[in-house]
Amino acid sequence: MKIIEKIIDMQDVMKIEKETGKKIGFVPTMGFLHEGHQTLLKEARDNNDIVVLSIFVNPLQFGPNEDFDAYPRDILRDEQIAKNMGVDYLFYPSVDEMYKDEKTTIIKVEKRVDVLCGKHRPGHFDGVATVVMKLFQIVTPHKAYFGMKDAQQVAVIDGLINDYHLPIELVRVETVREEDGLAKSSRNVYLNESEREKAPKLFQALCLGRDKLADGEKAIHEVKKGMEEFIALQTGAKVEYVEIYAYPTLEELTSPIREGKFNIIIALAVKFSKARLIDNIVFSYNKGE
Amino acid sequence: MKIIEKIIDMQDVMKIEKETGKKIGFVPTMGFLHEGHQTLLKEARDNNDIVVLSIFVNPLQFGPNEDFDAYPRDILRDEQIAKNMGVDYLFYPSVDEMYKDEKTTIIKVEKRVDVLCGKHRPGHFDGVATVVMKLFQIVTPHKAYFGMKDAQQVAVIDGLINDYHLPIELVRVETVREEDGLAKSSRNVYLNESEREKAPKLFQALCLGRDKLADGEKAIHEVKKGMEEFIALQTGAKVEYVEIYAYPTLEELTSPIREGKFNIIIALAVKFSKARLIDNIVFSYNKGE
Repeated sequence: MKIIEKIIDMQDVMKIEKETGKKIGFVPTMGFLHEGHQTLLKEARDNNDIVVLSIFVNPLQFGPNEDFDAYPRDILRDEQIAKNMGVDYLFYPSVDEMYKDEKTTIIKVEKRVDVLCGKHRPGHFDGVATVVMKLFQIVTPHKAYFGMKDAQQVAVIDGLINDYHLPIELVRVETVREEDGLAKSSRNVYLNESEREKAPKLFQALCLGRDKLADGEKAIHEVKKGMEEFIALQTGAKVEYVEIYAYPTLEELTSPIREGKFNIIIALAVKFSKARLIDNIVFSYNKGE
Repeated sequence: MKIIEKIIDMQDVMKIEKETGKKIGFVPTMGFLHEGHQTLLKEARDNNDIVVLSIFVNPLQFGPNEDFDAYPRDILRDEQIAKNMGVDYLFYPSVDEMYKDEKTTIIKVEKRVDVLCGKHRPGHFDGVATVVMKLFQIVTPHKAYFGMKDAQQVAVIDGLINDYHLPIELVRVETVREEDGLAKSSRNVYLNESEREKAPKLFQALCLGRDKLADGEKAIHEVKKGMEEFIALQTGAKVEYVEIYAYPTLEELTSPIREGKFNIIIALAVKFSKARLIDNIVFSYNKGE
């Protein structure tokens, strides 16, 4: 595995690899790699000639009240994981390298951001889109891998790729779950024993909502209400939101829900005593017409 | 010459040309080609294997009070000129083709825009940067040609290329002038006979300013004042602005001007009875240290 810190070096290497016809799979991350990242890397490894992992904690996507400096970092451990996963190139630029010249523009995300977690993080997805565009131009991958745990981020990247006609295939990788259904997350360690037992109910609530829609329930608010009651009763945690949208546009669905074939996301955020957990499912809806 | 209307077709063709090692020169325009465009095309023709011309009147860069529909178009004449200039591919997409999907983002230009003509056209350069980014991703040129008549646009594109590390060389093509120094412009036809005689004084004023700085004048306001007086006296036209900045950052210069080596732009906009003319010169300043 080669570690590359300079943009120009990364571009040179990618140019040579692509000239020999190699297919490039790219996994952009902020490092501190966990099992979710490893799933992305495995997908990339299985389906490309060359795997590029980037590790860059992007100051641009942190809000004024979000602590960029406190974001966890462990590059030596990350290097070891990357090697084990068969990464060919680890792109590891400094903040100074990525933002060395006067920045004159930003990519402003105008759709898909005023819902879910984005509603409370103004500017966050502008920072994400801007750095991902930079990384895409540096790495020029054929495929880019993102985890559906952060389904809103995937929707934003989907829009970015479409808007600028980027010749990149966005690969959406399913959320990795514990055997009992709880979405894996570094935040799960903040659950106490009793909360950990109840936490799988979140995924059950998502499935409940999906099944209600599949069974013909057409009133969106009824589905949400059922889920909220289920979570409250089964976990005692505070529901921050349960939302249901078209995916990836993240536009409101009519209620009663219209007939047709389209993708739906059900997403939730729930606050336990110390841990705030998010989860979602995306599925194909197909009714009537 | 091949005329291509679909984004996907353009991308396919460029991929094939580049695979055989061809160098691509790109001239993006809004059509209604004039002598300035032809100079860009000649430069591109002389220095690349393949020349791509795009003609696209971009609605996104027109303000609410600027008439997109009234913008002059003459595709048949443009086609003929393109053929004569040796263009290989004319990319001529419809508005629907360029903005067919829901647009989720815009490139917001945050620097280099609050001066010169940009000051009075909020959002204009966002539209320019967004469509140029789209075109760059579609055509993937090695070199892109822009005229220095619109020096602010060139500065914005320079920022765009740097921000996203695009592997594109920006070629700044000098303003084409009449023999008497007047910058060529389709608006010159709106000058009456007497105004046309005086109009070359604008370029003389720019040279006057440049020479004053070269001769050691350090007070920016003195240089501007001298130019304004010269223009008023020699042309009788109304000076809209005379501005002097660092280039391409378009940042204020200190006054007295600092020592060192850097590029300076002197730019002006002047209103005759019916024609509003703009002009500028960019030159290297090199004093002291």
